[in-house]
Amino acid sequence: MSDTITLTGLVATSPRHIVTTEGLAITSFRLASNQRRFDRTEGKWLDGDTNWYTVTAFRQLGTHVASSVQKGDRVLVTGRVRIRDWTSEEKSGTSIEIDAEAIGHDLTWGRATFTLSVVGAR
Amino acid sequence: MSDTITLTGLVATSPRHIVTTEGLAITSFRLASNQRRFDRTEGKWLDGDTNWYTVTAFRQLGTHVASSVQKGDRVLVTGRVRIRDWTSEEKSGTSIEIDAEAIGHDLTWGRATFTLSVVGAR
Amino acid sequence: MSDTITLTGLVATSPRHIVTTEGLAITSFRLASNQRRFDRTEGKWLDGDTNWYTVTAFRQLGTHVASSVQKGDRVLVTGRVRIRDWTSEEKSGTSIEIDAEAIGHDLTWGRATFTLSVVGAR
Amino acid sequence: MSDTITLTGLVATSPRHIVTTEGLAITSFRLASNQRRFDRTEGKWLDGDTNWYTVTAFRQLGTHVASSVQKGDRVLVTGRVRIRDWTSEEKSGTSIEIDAEAIGHDLTWGRATFTLSVVGAR
Repeated sequence: MSDTITLTGLVATSPRHIVTTEGLAITSFRLASNQRRFDRTEGKWLDGDTNWYTVTAFRQLGTHVASSVQKGDRVLVTGRVRIRDWTSEEKSGTSIEIDAEAIGHDLTWGRATFTLSVVGAR
Repeated sequence: MSDTITLTGLVATSPRHIVTTEGLAITSFRLASNQRRFDRTEGKWLDGDTNWYTVTAFRQLGTHVASSVQKGDRVLVTGRVRIRDWTSEEKSGTSIEIDAEAIGHDLTWGRATFTLSVVGAR
Repeated sequence: MSDTITLTGLVATSPRHIVTTEGLAITSFRLASNQRRFDRTEGKWLDGDTNWYTVTAFRQLGTHVASSVQKGDRVLVTGRVRIRDWTSEEKSGTSIEIDAEAIGHDLTWGRATFTLSVVGAR
Repeated sequence: MSDTITLTGLVATSPRHIVTTEGLAITSFRLASNQRRFDRTEGKWLDGDTNWYTVTAFRQLGTHVASSVQKGDRVLVTGRVRIRDWTSEEKSGTSIEIDAEAIGHDLTWGRATFTLSVVGAR
């Protein structure tokens, strides 16, 4: 079983789109997900911490995300989790990546117009 | 714990939008979700059965869905499941409803332009 | 993408275990999932409706469920949804099935002792 | 909406159980989740990377996990994700925590006996 996650959040960086020499389209962006919690004492929702993710989309989903999603948009993402340790020359850290299975603009936050692509999806 | 579901599918009916006398916006539509499965013998994806749901969105999400989603669109939905038995004068049956927590157009299948609403979301 | 669901509930029937002539172990039971909701006016959790599912487990998971799960147990289930219309001679209806990817006793409700099987799992 | 995750994995450390001075039971352990993927060329499942999480359970779930779960067990977990940056005197890093909503032994991997607690669960 894969580690499956579903979340909503704010697109915090402009999506970066590349096509590999093998022709694979890859698009990725940083996603900030603010955790709200209902405080029973105060009887209202309070802001909590922010979770940061790197969301990656491949193939047709990647191409469409590159032309549809902008920094500042609100999105809904579902996919598989990949936790990676990385090391550069000066620093090291851990990144939490999501291999997206589907991405859409979160209509809780705004309106969208959609154009179905003529090319069949997977 | 709620029964939590995440799925993608085809919007099979025009979204129906009402506002109750208390001012609550409610939008609902039928969603057809085609189950594909990878056949290891044939080495390719095959079509399976179709799951049918009634998706319901409330408040601001309901208002935005009414003005953004059309029959024929592909969407991504996450929410809570509610299974209900119903009886009319002549028939009875079971419907599977999803109280949507978030809905977005599935960018696997097309492109979208998004306009953030100025009113704060919940 | 499959329709993916995660839920907790009460095992409402004794698990029924069969092995097909091809040697495939299949175990299924009915699951009742009570939907609770937090009432902000009253400041407490209230009981809501009950969702009914048929949970099915295959292969090794099916064998272990047959020897581990009893009517009255509380379980946690994750899997894929399959909605089916059925007709018998006198009645027809709709059943909501879950093809389980994993099942475990819900430790919110009790204690469990676990014995790892020596046979490797899938 | 919370960031909701469901996953299975190996309990990699003995659960650590504390009770705060306010009487809150908290149990936590490290979980290793091996990501397998189906290789279509080779026609079989291959091992992938391992995701590491810190799983935390509170109240009654925490108490039952402390008396039921051991290092080496296989479990199924669903809950909310919390990503935290931490700094000690000599090092800093990022931890991925899961606030468990439900935990159970993964019956794909073994058998379990369950004893329902007489105290009502939340």
